[in-house]
Order: sequence, then C-alpha cells, then structure tokens
Amino acid sequence: MPVFPFHASLCVGRSLSTAAGRFRLPPTIRQILTSPQVNENVAVTAWVKSIRKQKRIAFGVLSDGSSPVGLQAVFQQELAERVKEITNGTSVYVRGKLVKSPGSGQDNELHVEEIEILGACDPDTYPIQKQALTPEYLRDNTHLRARTDAIAAMVRLRALLTRGLDRYFEAQGFLYAHTPVLTSGDAEGGGEAFRVAPLPPPVEHVPFEDNVEREFFTHPAYLTVSHQLHLEALSSALTRVYTLSPCFRAERGVTRRHLAEFWMLEAEWGAAPTENPRSQTAALCDFLEGVIKGVVGDTAIIHGDDVNVLWRHREHDSVSEADRQKRRDTMVSAVTTDAPWPKMSYSDAVRELLKSNREWTYPVRWGNALQSEHEKWLCEELVGGPLFVTDYPAGIKPFYMRANPPIAGEDEETVGCFDLLMPHVGELAGGSVREERIDDLKASMQSKGMDMEGDRYGWYGDLRRFGGAPHVGFGMGFERLVGWVGGIDNVRECIPMPRWAGRMLL
Amino acid sequence: MPVFPFHASLCVGRSLSTAAGRFRLPPTIRQILTSPQVNENVAVTAWVKSIRKQKRIAFGVLSDGSSPVGLQAVFQQELAERVKEITNGTSVYVRGKLVKSPGSGQDNELHVEEIEILGACDPDTYPIQKQALTPEYLRDNTHLRARTDAIAAMVRLRALLTRGLDRYFEAQGFLYAHTPVLTSGDAEGGGEAFRVAPLPPPVEHVPFEDNVEREFFTHPAYLTVSHQLHLEALSSALTRVYTLSPCFRAERGVTRRHLAEFWMLEAEWGAAPTENPRSQTAALCDFLEGVIKGVVGDTAIIHGDDVNVLWRHREHDSVSEADRQKRRDTMVSAVTTDAPWPKMSYSDAVRELLKSNREWTYPVRWGNALQSEHEKWLCEELVGGPLFVTDYPAGIKPFYMRANPPIAGEDEETVGCFDLLMPHVGELAGGSVREERIDDLKASMQSKGMDMEGDRYGWYGDLRRFGGAPHVGFGMGFERLVGWVGGIDNVRECIPMPRWAGRMLL
Repeated sequence: MPVFPFHASLCVGRSLSTAAGRFRLPPTIRQILTSPQVNENVAVTAWVKSIRKQKRIAFGVLSDGSSPVGLQAVFQQELAERVKEITNGTSVYVRGKLVKSPGSGQDNELHVEEIEILGACDPDTYPIQKQALTPEYLRDNTHLRARTDAIAAMVRLRALLTRGLDRYFEAQGFLYAHTPVLTSGDAEGGGEAFRVAPLPPPVEHVPFEDNVEREFFTHPAYLTVSHQLHLEALSSALTRVYTLSPCFRAERGVTRRHLAEFWMLEAEWGAAPTENPRSQTAALCDFLEGVIKGVVGDTAIIHGDDVNVLWRHREHDSVSEADRQKRRDTMVSAVTTDAPWPKMSYSDAVRELLKSNREWTYPVRWGNALQSEHEKWLCEELVGGPLFVTDYPAGIKPFYMRANPPIAGEDEETVGCFDLLMPHVGELAGGSVREERIDDLKASMQSKGMDMEGDRYGWYGDLRRFGGAPHVGFGMGFERLVGWVGGIDNVRECIPMPRWAGRMLL
Repeated sequence: MPVFPFHASLCVGRSLSTAAGRFRLPPTIRQILTSPQVNENVAVTAWVKSIRKQKRIAFGVLSDGSSPVGLQAVFQQELAERVKEITNGTSVYVRGKLVKSPGSGQDNELHVEEIEILGACDPDTYPIQKQALTPEYLRDNTHLRARTDAIAAMVRLRALLTRGLDRYFEAQGFLYAHTPVLTSGDAEGGGEAFRVAPLPPPVEHVPFEDNVEREFFTHPAYLTVSHQLHLEALSSALTRVYTLSPCFRAERGVTRRHLAEFWMLEAEWGAAPTENPRSQTAALCDFLEGVIKGVVGDTAIIHGDDVNVLWRHREHDSVSEADRQKRRDTMVSAVTTDAPWPKMSYSDAVRELLKSNREWTYPVRWGNALQSEHEKWLCEELVGGPLFVTDYPAGIKPFYMRANPPIAGEDEETVGCFDLLMPHVGELAGGSVREERIDDLKASMQSKGMDMEGDRYGWYGDLRRFGGAPHVGFGMGFERLVGWVGGIDNVRECIPMPRWAGRMLL
C-alpha cells in the first residue's frame, strides 16, 4: 500500500515556517478551488461523488464536503485497476497535479497520479443512492444525510450565518455569552419545559434510609426554553450580550415549524432612556432589521453557492418553479433594499384583518393572539414581505414586557414588543422593551400570579433594585432563519440532527 | 426629566449613511476609549463604579462592561444636585464632551454636561460592595457577580477565546456545526448522563387507558456527555467539523475542576492515510498545540487587559505573588515558544513515575489509569509545562480508539490517543485516532459488551461500512482552557452561571 507522507508542497497557496507547517492541515477542496495553484502537487482525502469510466480514461468528481462544487479528477489508463474498485461513496486518497481544465464545467482539474482506496462503499446497499431521496427517507438516515448536496449546503449555511452574526454583533459592541441550559425555570408551568429526571437510587455512600430518588441540584431542573432572563442578568453588568444556544420545548404538536431542540439567537442590551417607549420598540425593530440585512444580505451568503444549491434542490417540492423564484426574489429584495421594513401595531393589524372580509378559522378580536393564518395573510398578502407587528395587548404577553403609555382614544393596555413575520416562515423573531421599573414589574408579576420577592424570582427583581436601567432584547429562531434564507420548508431540514415529538435518532 | 434622543454625532468614529445609521447602536465605552474622538459629543448608559465627590467637582468612573478600563467622568459644580444621588452601582445616562485628560491615569476624560439617573442603587443593601468579596459569596450572588472586575473579565475572555477559536478553525478549513444535546446515549451506562424525565400524565387527547407516564421520544433521552460520535457522523460527509457546545455530567464528586454543565470544544477531521498510526497521534497533538498557540498566543489575548485583570485579581488566593507570576510566565511561554511541547508515551510516563521514588496514594502500575497526583507531577515537576501523554492501554480507553501496531519488545495493547496535561489544570484535552476499520471496531465493541449491528450503534458502524476513512479528533474543556489562560483556580469562576452537584441558582 503506498504511503503519502505530509509534504510541505501540499500546502497550496501558503509558504510556511517549519513551526507553523507542523500545525497546518493540507488544503480542503474549497481551498484548492478558491486559491488554485496550477501545476502544483495536490493531495486530498475525499469521497467520490460520481465516476464516469471510459475506455482509456475515467472522470470523477471528488467531494470533501467543504464546498458544494466538487474537484474534477482525471484518471489515466495506468490507474484502471484501482479505478475499477471505485463506486459512488468510496473514500479515496488521491495525489496528482492541478492543471487547467480543457472541459467547460470547471477552471481546473486534478490529473491523478496515485490513488489509495480508503473505504469501499457497496453500491447495492449504500443508503445514499444517486436518485433523488425524499426528506422523510433521509431523516431515517440522519447519520448519512449530510452526504447529500442539500443537507451539506444547509450545514455550511448554518456555519456562514453563525459567523456572520458573530461579526455583526462584535461590530456593534456585543459580547457573546454562554447562559445555562439547565435552569430552575419551568416556563411558568406552561408544561412545555423538559424536566431533568431525579437520580435513581441506589446512591453510593448514602445511608439506606436516605437512599431514595433525589434531585441532583436539590430542586427540580428543567431544560431552558429561552435564555432571556439569564441574559438580562449579564446585560445588567455587561450591557450588550448575545448568545446562540440550544433551547428546548416539549411541544407535542408536530408541525413543519417546531423542533423539540432548536437553536436560538438571543440578544439583550441597554437602551438610551426615552419618555416614549414606543420609540424604543421602533429602534429595537430597526436593530434586528439591521442584523438580518447585515448578515444575510452579504453577497457571499445571499448569492453564494450554498444558498444557490438550497433553492435549486427541490425534487420533492410541491411549489412551482415560478413560485419558488418569486419567494427567493422576495427574500433577496428584503435583505438588499435600503427601504425600511414596514411596522404595524397589533391594533392596526387587527383592523386590517377585520377589513379583509376573509373567513378565518380563528376569530379575529382585539385581545386574541394572532394565529398562523392571520400572520400568513399579513406578511404574505397584505405586505408581501417582512412585517413587524408591534405593541400587543398586555394580557397575551409575558410579565417582563414594558407597559406602553396610553394612547388618546384607546383605553386598552399594550406592551412595547414586536413579532417579526416572514413570508412562508411565520414568526421569525420576537422581542420587547423589558420592564425596568421595579414597581411596574412587581405589579405585572402579581397580575400573572408570580412573586418578585420570593426565592424563584427575587434575583430578577434585584436586577432592577440595584442600578436597573432601560433595556431591550429579542430572540430569533435560528432554524427558521436558515429556512427563510435557504428556502427550506421544514425546520427538520434546517438542523443536522432534528428532534421532535416521538423522534430522536442517534 | 431630560430626554436625549439618538444623535448621529454620538456615533463616534464612524460616518454613516442614513440607512446604516438606523441600525447602529451608539459606541460602547470600549469603542470610545479605543477610537477616541477628542472634543466630540459622547453619550453613554453606564454604571458608576466609583465616585469621588469634592467641593466643586466630582470624579466618577463609568463602566458598561465592555472594557475592564472605565471611562473617567468629570462633573462640575452645576451638576452637584444630581451627583448627590449617585452611589456605586447607580445606573446613569450621561452626555458630554470627550477631552484630553490632564490626569495621569487615562488619556481622555468625559466632561459631563447632562446626567440622568436611570436606576438608584442603595449603598446599604447592594450585594456588590467595594471591598473584596469571596468567590463563595459571589457564587451566592450569581445574578450580580458579572458586575465585579474578575467575573466580567472572565466573560469577556470567554468571548475572545470563542472568536479566536472560530477564526483559527475557519482558516484550517473546518465547519462549525451544531450537534444535539438530547441523545440516545447514556454514556455507556456509566451513570454520569443526566436523563430527561418522561412526561407525566395526564396528557390531553389521549384515551384514559394510555394516559400513563411516557417518553417524549418513545425511547429514553439523555443529555449528551460528548458530541464526538455525532460529530463523527458529520465528519464522514463534511470532513472537518468542530463544535463548541454544552455537555453535561451528573458527577456527584465536587471538585474545583468539574461542573455538571460545561462547554467543550470538540473537533473531528479526516486524516491522510498512513501505515503508522503513531504518526497520526503525533500529528493530532501537533494540531491541537497549534490551536492553543494560535488562539491563546494572540497578543490581544495573552497580553490583553482581561487576562491582566484576571491574573491580578487574587485577594482570596492562597498562592504567593511569586508563584502566581511563575505560573503565568509558564503559561505565556508555552503559547509563545516555537519549541514543540513534549510528548511522552503512557508507558514512558509510567516508567518515570516509578523512577520518581515518590509515595503515591494510587499505585502506579502499567494498565492503571493515571490519577491527578500522577498527572500533576508529570507536567508540573517532571516537565514544567504542557505535556502530551500518548498511547494509553486499550483496556482503560473507550471502544472507538484505534489499536496501535505492536512495538518490538512490548506485548501490551495500546491505542492511538493522547491526554494533554497542563500545570495546575490537569487534563485540558484528550483525543484519539478513531478506529476506521470496521472489523477492528466490531471486535473492540464486542470486547466492551457493545453490539455494532444493533439498533443503538448500527449507525456508527455505517460510517465505516460506507466509505469509511481514517479520522482523528479531540475534545477540550472550555472552562479549563479559560482557567489556564486566566489563572483561575476553580472552574466555577470560569463560566457565568455554574452548576454542580447540589447547586443550581437562577
């Protein structure tokens, strides 16, 4: 078996000191394709995505997952014996020279000089066959599905968005912070929080009479449904903080928009004081609009290979080609326009819904939550793009949102908050001005049956009691963002290994 | 109450289009200090860290947590009424002009023209008093402790390291990926995995007879103890992947090095084939050494303000000033030297331990795990710096590590792996060459009572069955890295909101 030691010459495009060379991995296919060193030696470990064997020559496409574009490889006659063993999915180590390609599909190609077969792939039993595979079939093969173009592109898009978000928030003076997954909060008894099981007996070194089921932390632990309250604690010291962290909801409903484990981008920051909290809600919406335009609107994302692959990959799609293109155009135009996204108060949204003369499954009435059908109509039909709905009734929103001052002629109580509605996604993000006034917070908690002085929320009161300051924040579902940008209908295809009610593979 | 609207002129150091200006937050204190626009108007929301009131003038230090260095603020006589209300911890919004400072402590200072008190802070009951507070006291006040210099510096150091790691891995062609927290794995029954509780009855819409406790996912769910196996699945498609994600261990032991919830950096990547797996272990160690040198060795980190604060902040330290300086020098020299960190096989380490003639609490014998006392001696006394110990006995390592070929004269079975030992930290990271040969993997699993063909691990076998390739990986405890870089003795001070056996606040 030939052995190919690590050669400095394989580090295409870099000249390295010996010390740095020790730490440098050889270039990926993406690096080879984006900084090609023509007539240089190249070695890669990759999977064969396709192989076309002709009489005296064979053409293969090699992928290492770093790029949606594969490396074109040409195998001459003298490698024919080895090439015979190659099928789709075979893992190979190849070495050769990068040369200008006479073909039209690529700039450069690899003239292979040596091949080593690392792992065979039985073409009869390999679960990832060439023909289009349904999303459901691929979910059953979660462990292998990142070998398909669409799932690989989705994973890369997640990485691009994560990095873009990090850089955007850095430029705005935010700190990335890790808040806990294990919390004391049970989402206010909503029944949607996963609970950590107490430890079973027997416990070593514990007397027999005490050896019963016991809480690891002495009190019940839950998996967080949102990092907001903990981020508020950090914001009360570090001002601008954000996190991209896993969240958990034990929702029994199975929809294309919900996962039991999902990632959420959450941010909290201090806001300049104002007499008009409504202007803070508007500034909060503006900031989030800037995040999405600044990150997604980057040409490397919006016109990048991965997003292209995702919008193209639609073998099992019920949407027509024309509708698909229209959806994509709407998305691209939303993140590239200078025009601000429209904002509409909840009260105005209710008026529009009532004016629409539609038959709604759920009645439209001031004080009711907006349902998916309402949100869908507002952003897809009324506005035709992203829409901020602001200032919801206090009665349907959580305790921590700041009460709005009354408006002349309207006597309903609202809070300074927004939901961001996106066509074909629904609610992408939500946020609010946080109630920083301790007496108002206490009253709001009391009205929801909570006790700001007690053990459970005393700490949250302290954040106001000692140097409290106006602050705002939002949460954005990361899988929904990925779905919106990539035109992916189901959030299960927006995360590498999805979990939902009744389903957890691996 | 005066109101200060958002002014474009407050965006120090940037000229902005109207659209971008809509999305831009005003500068943080860090931004003001690092790109000072002298004689410009500045407005900040901040907490008063200290205030010194003189007859006609007052001096305050303002902090918004963005920097360990505060903004020096000067209040003239005409603000005296307002200044009276200010105590440490008061939240204020101030506006004024940045001018050259005649004082020696800072380049510039803010001449305050207007103050608004946003939140008072009762000096008698404020838990964060000026005098040094013990780590234990601050843990009891987790929600407020990020207002202290050391905890704030630790949170910022975490953000710096996270960003540095991301950039380093990006340059090496890695993809950042999110693997699940909820898994089917119980850490091989080791009893250290938290289990998610089944859902309690009653469940709505379920017939009475079925309305019993039930698993949300139909089978038991655990909180992951390591993302490795799932990362291997992604690596089998995307080649180079890493994650920085929360991990969980229900360890009852309470030590300064263990948390129930901690963050781990884990990476997996395809390795070029070789006939000598020992050279792959060496290359794996080299890569990790490059990660740590490349990220921590960055001047902005190693000589940055936050690391300086952390090494300085030692009111409650049992270590002498001289020893502390020595520890820091060892750390700085480890990440700035071109010399490679030493590597030593487990067998050689055992020989050295036996030669030492020390009295060990745990017996040193080939085939036993190395205990903390042994690891401590090896890196702190024998080597005096980071040490890779490689090629441990197969019997004390997990099933997935690749068997080493025998060495002449030694008939013990070892696997291609390493632990990285750091002075005063112990094991910082561990990794291995993964067993990619399906028959060897099957045998290894059988020897540990596991079934590669079964439901539980069939997927892991598939990764080898279909185009398997040589690959390697490691995991590094993020809190331990933070502790090593910042000279923090206890991991509870290396994460914003620590959880350990018996303890979970917030």
